[in-house]
Amino acid sequence: MNDNRLDNSVGLVQPQRFHFDQPLTLRSGKALPGYELMVETYGELNADKSNAVLICHALSGDHHAAGYHSEDDQKPGWWDTCIGPGKAIDTNRFFVVCLNNLGGCGGSTGPVSINPETGKHYGPDFPIITVRDWVNSQVRLMDRLGIGKWAAVAGGSLGGMQVLRWAISYPERLHHAIAIAAAPKLSAQNIAFNEVARQSITSDPDFHDGHYLEHGVYPKQGLMLARMVGHITYLSDSAMRAKFGKAFAALEGQTGNFGRDLRTGSLSFGFNVDFEVESYLHYQGEQFSEKFDANTYLLMTKALDYFDPSVDYGGDLSRAFAESECNFLLISFSTDWRFPPDRSRELVKQLLKADKQVSYLEIEADQGHDAFLLPIPRYVNALSAYLGNAHREICGDAS
Amino acid sequence: MNDNRLDNSVGLVQPQRFHFDQPLTLRSGKALPGYELMVETYGELNADKSNAVLICHALSGDHHAAGYHSEDDQKPGWWDTCIGPGKAIDTNRFFVVCLNNLGGCGGSTGPVSINPETGKHYGPDFPIITVRDWVNSQVRLMDRLGIGKWAAVAGGSLGGMQVLRWAISYPERLHHAIAIAAAPKLSAQNIAFNEVARQSITSDPDFHDGHYLEHGVYPKQGLMLARMVGHITYLSDSAMRAKFGKAFAALEGQTGNFGRDLRTGSLSFGFNVDFEVESYLHYQGEQFSEKFDANTYLLMTKALDYFDPSVDYGGDLSRAFAESECNFLLISFSTDWRFPPDRSRELVKQLLKADKQVSYLEIEADQGHDAFLLPIPRYVNALSAYLGNAHREICGDAS
Repeated sequence: MNDNRLDNSVGLVQPQRFHFDQPLTLRSGKALPGYELMVETYGELNADKSNAVLICHALSGDHHAAGYHSEDDQKPGWWDTCIGPGKAIDTNRFFVVCLNNLGGCGGSTGPVSINPETGKHYGPDFPIITVRDWVNSQVRLMDRLGIGKWAAVAGGSLGGMQVLRWAISYPERLHHAIAIAAAPKLSAQNIAFNEVARQSITSDPDFHDGHYLEHGVYPKQGLMLARMVGHITYLSDSAMRAKFGKAFAALEGQTGNFGRDLRTGSLSFGFNVDFEVESYLHYQGEQFSEKFDANTYLLMTKALDYFDPSVDYGGDLSRAFAESECNFLLISFSTDWRFPPDRSRELVKQLLKADKQVSYLEIEADQGHDAFLLPIPRYVNALSAYLGNAHREICGDAS
Repeated sequence: MNDNRLDNSVGLVQPQRFHFDQPLTLRSGKALPGYELMVETYGELNADKSNAVLICHALSGDHHAAGYHSEDDQKPGWWDTCIGPGKAIDTNRFFVVCLNNLGGCGGSTGPVSINPETGKHYGPDFPIITVRDWVNSQVRLMDRLGIGKWAAVAGGSLGGMQVLRWAISYPERLHHAIAIAAAPKLSAQNIAFNEVARQSITSDPDFHDGHYLEHGVYPKQGLMLARMVGHITYLSDSAMRAKFGKAFAALEGQTGNFGRDLRTGSLSFGFNVDFEVESYLHYQGEQFSEKFDANTYLLMTKALDYFDPSVDYGGDLSRAFAESECNFLLISFSTDWRFPPDRSRELVKQLLKADKQVSYLEIEADQGHDAFLLPIPRYVNALSAYLGNAHREICGDAS
């Protein structure tokens, strides 16, 4: 790997599998008899174990947040823009932990795992998982690693919701909660989009009520559609337009402009793909459908739908945070219409009402919800500065 | 019908079928050998035929814009809020004409019609139709009715696009162009949503490459999904929340609040329908799938995608309107995120650049894109006042 992929990169990384024997009782009342978590770590845990940062992933993420898995690997982990030596989440300072969540399809116990009670894949019988369940499973990982208190827990989107749950459920176990492009709960519109995605999966004839693995198939069309819907909500209109050319070049070695027919330069008057945006979505949907498990997609979207920490507090979100001891950093992006700045401001308001320390940053960015994954200077620099201060405070050095 | 349905209603109405023998060459280069249009009219054409108003329908609309089809009919035409005696489009003053567009499934020639060349349903062989083709077919209807110049052509959404095309293609044949909740062309995001809808239909195994009628089936799941996606884009988040209760009462005779489980009052931790928004969407999708033709849905969304009158003028929309002689009224709604106020303001800007008479009204309304169908006082009153003035000007009375 003598190329510039290694600049500021954590380099080659290897996931580790952690096994947990103790049953985990879930919010639904069901229990997992035991479970495995796939984990990656970057950087070194310091002597007093005070420099650990937990990264929580979003809907389609996994434990592979930074670096490369092999010499030939062209694509780094999903948050490589922010995690690495000298980067915002600086692995020269922090010991960074990222795991694949329960119910995922990245190697942690989930629908594609074998159910010890039946000897078959869990498939659709994998229990519904909530954000709270994830955090409960993550605490056990923390204990296993010997970490008493995270310097920070950070995540975007659904990852940000796990961050909020940490602050509520385990107030004494984190110094900083960093929730990016998140929301206190889903809007009606968010849930509606999730439901369309789920319907498209479950109505695919290859879904077989979730038992597709036993039939040697998978609901490719349904997953493609689900991803297409998702993708629209992750991008702003301008981001979508900006992205066509690139994805399209990858698809057919061509470039062109929005609205122009791909083959003839004019309208083809047919139902073949006409516009680059359509090609782009097909390409994205197809790529995704080949690597993501449909039952996991259903579980992840339900976890989103069910997230509402105010539920245990009579709908008063500020009361949910009453016991929180950490400082909060919230970040939103101007063109994010999935979880727009308004939703982060709601959170800020409730946190202030609960008398918490909150920093809030609204970033002007064209890229919609996806912006949290991108190297937008003001965003990355702010995250870097915040975590630099946190490191000085917690770990006591002046570097 | 001795009930209050008849207050300000045009009452019982009957559609008429018009046959046109002359072939119609379409924008795609194909031709229809002849065609039929289903038409409804309300009010009386005056002696000099100066009081006629054409209503153009949107994606899922048809010729039935006002009144009732039978004594038992509980649901009036789609724009009954605005068309009737004393209403904004006042049938005491105006002779109102509405037709089902070519390619539709309301009785005009479309995919469910018999192709005279094959003796079978057109199905997927029905040619791609553009907004321009519709307007060309509408001119022939106008001629048949002996109308020289419309007092106004009016429509919302895709209907508004037909209005704009009238002003461009037939400048001498209308006094007023009233385009509501419209756009000069679709955004990348609009096209992306249309493509998801089309994919959901064409990937339904009951679609049979569009030949579902021959197989005695129809792509119910695909149409449901398409409508669910569409419905999300028609409504604002708050409108969606406000609507649940009502649709849900219709569905199961129950009411409830957003986010509460329908049966138990708590989360059910399953993949059955959990939230009212999901029930609402299922209900809407199911209703729609039972009455709308899938091939028509594909055609209508492609007509939307292809709409861009600037294409013949090097992308300069103002030049497209250079020859227009009519006055323009544009109306947009604050929470419409499908064709938001920005898109109408783009139109206003280009019309002013072309030195046209433009009135523009931006209405504060919670209901999203659907607002154009609703009795929002400021909107309905403005439309009424504008058309009252138009009537005085054109028809010369002081009533």
